[in-house]
Amino acid sequence: MTLFLERGYDEVTVADIAERAGLTKRSFFNHFADKREAVFASVDALQESVLAALAEADADLGPLDAAVWAFAQAAAPVGDYPDLARARQALIDSCLELQERDLMKRASMASAVAGALERRGVPRRSAAFAAQAATTVFTTALDDWVHEPERGLAPSIQGALDDLRTSLRSEDQGAHHHGGRADGHAAVLVPEP
Amino acid sequence: MTLFLERGYDEVTVADIAERAGLTKRSFFNHFADKREAVFASVDALQESVLAALAEADADLGPLDAAVWAFAQAAAPVGDYPDLARARQALIDSCLELQERDLMKRASMASAVAGALERRGVPRRSAAFAAQAATTVFTTALDDWVHEPERGLAPSIQGALDDLRTSLRSEDQGAHHHGGRADGHAAVLVPEP
Repeated sequence: MTLFLERGYDEVTVADIAERAGLTKRSFFNHFADKREAVFASVDALQESVLAALAEADADLGPLDAAVWAFAQAAAPVGDYPDLARARQALIDSCLELQERDLMKRASMASAVAGALERRGVPRRSAAFAAQAATTVFTTALDDWVHEPERGLAPSIQGALDDLRTSLRSEDQGAHHHGGRADGHAAVLVPEP
Repeated sequence: MTLFLERGYDEVTVADIAERAGLTKRSFFNHFADKREAVFASVDALQESVLAALAEADADLGPLDAAVWAFAQAAAPVGDYPDLARARQALIDSCLELQERDLMKRASMASAVAGALERRGVPRRSAAFAAQAATTVFTTALDDWVHEPERGLAPSIQGALDDLRTSLRSEDQGAHHHGGRADGHAAVLVPEP
């Protein structure tokens, strides 16, 4: 990360990284498939921690709360290094191929969390939706927090979770005015002919 | 798409595509930055249609309902071609670089829809969450529908929307048992020390 920040992502070679770390290029490739992967090593580690935390989450929590709680637990150590997190985010934003890999890592995270929720007995589709939402909550909170670190990472996560629920729920307040259904869901789609 | 299905994505060159379409390679590159983009031309067109539909959506609809309604309107013509949609999905699933581009296109879709919601007066963060959720609802519904086309695309979208709400909402039913707050949101996170 220090090398990337010093010289810019494109200017750093795998040989440079290996040399700085006191490794051979071959050792590098034993750990990472390519240069991009080195940027996301912390995400892979976070994913492992999220899955471990989720296995410990209170059985009474619903899927979204359980997943968000697991993110908050796993990310707690990150909360001590807002400058590093901000620099890492700026690095990813600087480079299209890192943005692509970042999206792949988020999809992988959501998929892994969904699998862990299923192992808690959550039905497949609910697990997928909750995992996706929890991943969105976490990435949104991380982005808030790197720009406003004094708030703290955990409160940022709680705030993003509350905002997500409010954003998706607001329709219900108006459901009675435009076609609310007996099951509490608004029917918004024109039926097929 | 016919060429990709005949020969496999990797075996088809831009020259092949241009020839089949009766164009020069130069004309191809006037339309598409690379071979991958040709696979996603329909997504770019869909995005335009979603934005156009959203501009027409009932002003009383909340952001998630408005965005999902716009997807349903824009995707209605797709509903006549389940075989094409299924073949396209299989093509993307067959190739990592197409999966990456697919994720980029979904992110671009969510971002464009969020912008359109903001133009309807939805606050920035609510717009982002609703747009992301609507994109998830649509891609989930599309996946359901290509595997079960007799159900119809619009009912699949409505079903996915209902399921998303149920999945994310279920926590509230238990909020009184484990730390519900006066504002109706469950507080699930351990406060920072």
